[in-house]
Amino acid sequence: MSNTIRKRWQEKLHDTIYESNTLAGKVFDIALLILILGSITVVMLDSIESYHRRYGTFFYTLEWGFTILFTIEYILRLVSIRRPLRYVFSSLGIIDLLAIIPSYLSFVFAGAQSLLVLRALRLLRIFRIFKLTHFLTELAFLKASLASSLKKISIFMLVVLTLVIILGSIMYLVENGENGFSNIPESIYWAIVTITTVGYGDISPVTPLGKFIASIMMFIGYGIIAVPTGIITTEIALAVRSRKPGHEVCKGCGAEGHDGDASFCKFCGTAL
Amino acid sequence: MSNTIRKRWQEKLHDTIYESNTLAGKVFDIALLILILGSITVVMLDSIESYHRRYGTFFYTLEWGFTILFTIEYILRLVSIRRPLRYVFSSLGIIDLLAIIPSYLSFVFAGAQSLLVLRALRLLRIFRIFKLTHFLTELAFLKASLASSLKKISIFMLVVLTLVIILGSIMYLVENGENGFSNIPESIYWAIVTITTVGYGDISPVTPLGKFIASIMMFIGYGIIAVPTGIITTEIALAVRSRKPGHEVCKGCGAEGHDGDASFCKFCGTAL
Amino acid sequence: MSNTIRKRWQEKLHDTIYESNTLAGKVFDIALLILILGSITVVMLDSIESYHRRYGTFFYTLEWGFTILFTIEYILRLVSIRRPLRYVFSSLGIIDLLAIIPSYLSFVFAGAQSLLVLRALRLLRIFRIFKLTHFLTELAFLKASLASSLKKISIFMLVVLTLVIILGSIMYLVENGENGFSNIPESIYWAIVTITTVGYGDISPVTPLGKFIASIMMFIGYGIIAVPTGIITTEIALAVRSRKPGHEVCKGCGAEGHDGDASFCKFCGTAL
Amino acid sequence: MSNTIRKRWQEKLHDTIYESNTLAGKVFDIALLILILGSITVVMLDSIESYHRRYGTFFYTLEWGFTILFTIEYILRLVSIRRPLRYVFSSLGIIDLLAIIPSYLSFVFAGAQSLLVLRALRLLRIFRIFKLTHFLTELAFLKASLASSLKKISIFMLVVLTLVIILGSIMYLVENGENGFSNIPESIYWAIVTITTVGYGDISPVTPLGKFIASIMMFIGYGIIAVPTGIITTEIALAVRSRKPGHEVCKGCGAEGHDGDASFCKFCGTAL
Repeated sequence: MSNTIRKRWQEKLHDTIYESNTLAGKVFDIALLILILGSITVVMLDSIESYHRRYGTFFYTLEWGFTILFTIEYILRLVSIRRPLRYVFSSLGIIDLLAIIPSYLSFVFAGAQSLLVLRALRLLRIFRIFKLTHFLTELAFLKASLASSLKKISIFMLVVLTLVIILGSIMYLVENGENGFSNIPESIYWAIVTITTVGYGDISPVTPLGKFIASIMMFIGYGIIAVPTGIITTEIALAVRSRKPGHEVCKGCGAEGHDGDASFCKFCGTAL
Repeated sequence: MSNTIRKRWQEKLHDTIYESNTLAGKVFDIALLILILGSITVVMLDSIESYHRRYGTFFYTLEWGFTILFTIEYILRLVSIRRPLRYVFSSLGIIDLLAIIPSYLSFVFAGAQSLLVLRALRLLRIFRIFKLTHFLTELAFLKASLASSLKKISIFMLVVLTLVIILGSIMYLVENGENGFSNIPESIYWAIVTITTVGYGDISPVTPLGKFIASIMMFIGYGIIAVPTGIITTEIALAVRSRKPGHEVCKGCGAEGHDGDASFCKFCGTAL
Repeated sequence: MSNTIRKRWQEKLHDTIYESNTLAGKVFDIALLILILGSITVVMLDSIESYHRRYGTFFYTLEWGFTILFTIEYILRLVSIRRPLRYVFSSLGIIDLLAIIPSYLSFVFAGAQSLLVLRALRLLRIFRIFKLTHFLTELAFLKASLASSLKKISIFMLVVLTLVIILGSIMYLVENGENGFSNIPESIYWAIVTITTVGYGDISPVTPLGKFIASIMMFIGYGIIAVPTGIITTEIALAVRSRKPGHEVCKGCGAEGHDGDASFCKFCGTAL
Repeated sequence: MSNTIRKRWQEKLHDTIYESNTLAGKVFDIALLILILGSITVVMLDSIESYHRRYGTFFYTLEWGFTILFTIEYILRLVSIRRPLRYVFSSLGIIDLLAIIPSYLSFVFAGAQSLLVLRALRLLRIFRIFKLTHFLTELAFLKASLASSLKKISIFMLVVLTLVIILGSIMYLVENGENGFSNIPESIYWAIVTITTVGYGDISPVTPLGKFIASIMMFIGYGIIAVPTGIITTEIALAVRSRKPGHEVCKGCGAEGHDGDASFCKFCGTAL
């Protein structure tokens, strides 16, 4: 067939698979969404012993069905995109591959089947599919807030990490390697469980001094859990405020992001 | 009796049962409130084995008493309202029905009695009854704040849900179906228990790698618990601010943002 | 002695015990603070079995010493105040009495001694004693923020309470009175433990449906824990802002509480 | 050698060890960072029984290697600084000493080796080393926010402490010294575990009354966890706001509050 026709056909396919402004695109996205949720449900149910015993073979067939469909999808994605390699090595491309490989691997290595749980990663596609929903703005909004506070949060996490390492090591000394504090990594694990107020109770101090130190740690955790909250709350508050009306573009310099109460462009001074 | 009289009588009844601006209405509401609390208390006490053995029959009689009273109330609600069907299929109508049906069902199916716990749902009426208290504004206020942040919260919850499914599946692989991570749903349940910092400890990682991943999850949970807080805090702050009346512009200097109690512009001193 | 002298002497005593602007008053407060902390420490140590066996009699003597000193203090408070009865029935008066009664009761009822732990209540005096420290403003500040948000918080707590009663009752049905959900109050206790993210793990769901509902509850708890935070944060933010400079009194109308940026009284319009 | 040369050499050394504006300084800092992390990793691994049995001697040699390197570093710090004693008694100086002493002590007392975990304290040096990264501003920012809210937080913690002592003592009475509430300190420990929502579950109430009081405590903890968050959030919000530069007044209209990137007044358009 002539190259131009081929191009058109390829383009059409591309719009269907990657975009969602066409009807075909929307249908494809929703179908994919259902397929992903279905495949994950099957993997989940199959992981339940009793169900596996009863419906094992049925689940097996289904999983192969999903594998084949996902394989076809993967191939279509490859042929319909201009730079296939770039897709293959993109995070989404790798995830798509991880979703189909295990089944094929299971021919070579028994038990590779169990890697099918990695299909759960495909759930991340949902947010890409959601580009067709009004949720995306909210998601972008949350992302922005988190991104802008990431630096503060990470330095805070570094402080907490140092804290738990030090306190964990001290607890290892205090509890003298007993009562579950059998080594420093364990003690650090316990310190994290405690300072994040998760508190499983699989490890908990027994010596009075240990309990005393633990109490102090809990108070610390109680106090500093406020810090990330404070950081993110501030960021969100700023984001919300800056989001308020009056975002028209300046005719003078084309700058955006003017405050709601601005009547002149703050960059070039032309009236808005 | 003449239709008009019937109407009047019906109207009076309606005001008593559904409204609370009349004295009769207030009395009815309070009586109902006491009845609901009483019935729930009885169900609770009856659920305690030792009490049931001793006072079982007494509780049984009481429950029947409440059932009859609630049945009468239900009938009165039906006859006194213009569109009975609309009430029957309203959420409150269904709840009211759920509160009386079990007792009658217990003739047919033994043990239906136990469904009496559904009476707890009637507690929701309290907020309707509270319309006569000054609390309602606060309740409406909270509702508004939550409603306006619902979209952000729900998308956030979707992110968290994806996260727990993925992390749960990975933990299932890591802990290799042991130590309580016997299947993926269980592992996801554990992931939720962990990321929400509830941490029962009925399931907890045993392998070093599992503990490492769990630690990371706790830090994630520790960090992202801030997000809903940030969202709601911002909403409440906005609500509180927008709640303050008196945001008119000053004729003198055009300044905005005067307090509600201001009668003069605080910038130029002209009367508002 | 003449009545006037008696008055003077009584006044002096009153200033020493109740006020702290005199040196004697300060000394008295600090001495009392030490006594309270000492008495509580003794009660604590005495509650530890091994210490009790060894130093029991010594602790016993100490406790009697504190009792006598507190009794003297109590009597002095009575004689030095104008309206003794009002003090006796004031919350602080009752606490002071509770701190000394148990020892005397122990003559009549054995074991009344154990009520000595009520001395811990005297710790509340610390905040009264702190009136001499700069902490009081901060305390008052916190109090104010909490008070102004109390109404919102309490209505919120009522919503949560209704929620836990309903969810607890449902869990009782779902777990079918087993796995620790042996009766509705227990189930409600579990629901509170879960929704507040405490998560002891002494009771935890076993049935899949139970775990599913529990997961939903955790998400709810995760989401709504943000509400009180949001309320209080807003209140504190408002309090802090209103605390900012520019609180001078208006010469025109004597009104206070002008914003920092106000250059005219917002009530009468006179220049500040 | 001549004194001046000696001075120069000493100065150069000082810059290398204490400063990081020179290349040598940067290299030294990074090398030190790696050494610290390495030494801590070794101590951690060595604390794991199985590894200790296998690689014990190897770890032992490594630890001595680190000890010697840290000793050299310590000596260099002493000789290169003007006031050695001031460094010795500075918190960092003490930590540096604590990192090397245990190894030497192990000659005198067996088991002193275990004190090597104190090397974890050296992690605190990381933040000093980070002075060469852009993170420092963020760290300083967090410090400032925490410092300015420290007073409020500490008074709040005092309130909580009083609360847990009182509630702990009461629980000791209620649970009657059983079910893990074997003495008041234990009960207070439990109260802290509960009110901070950690909830290990190693101790949990058994009597109905105990569970009731615990439920109330959880609600209290649920409500007041908001307070430190509120305080810190407010502080951070203020810090962020005050951090924005460009708050100059417009010459044209006297309006304030322009953004940092604004070069024209957004109200009247005059150049700032």
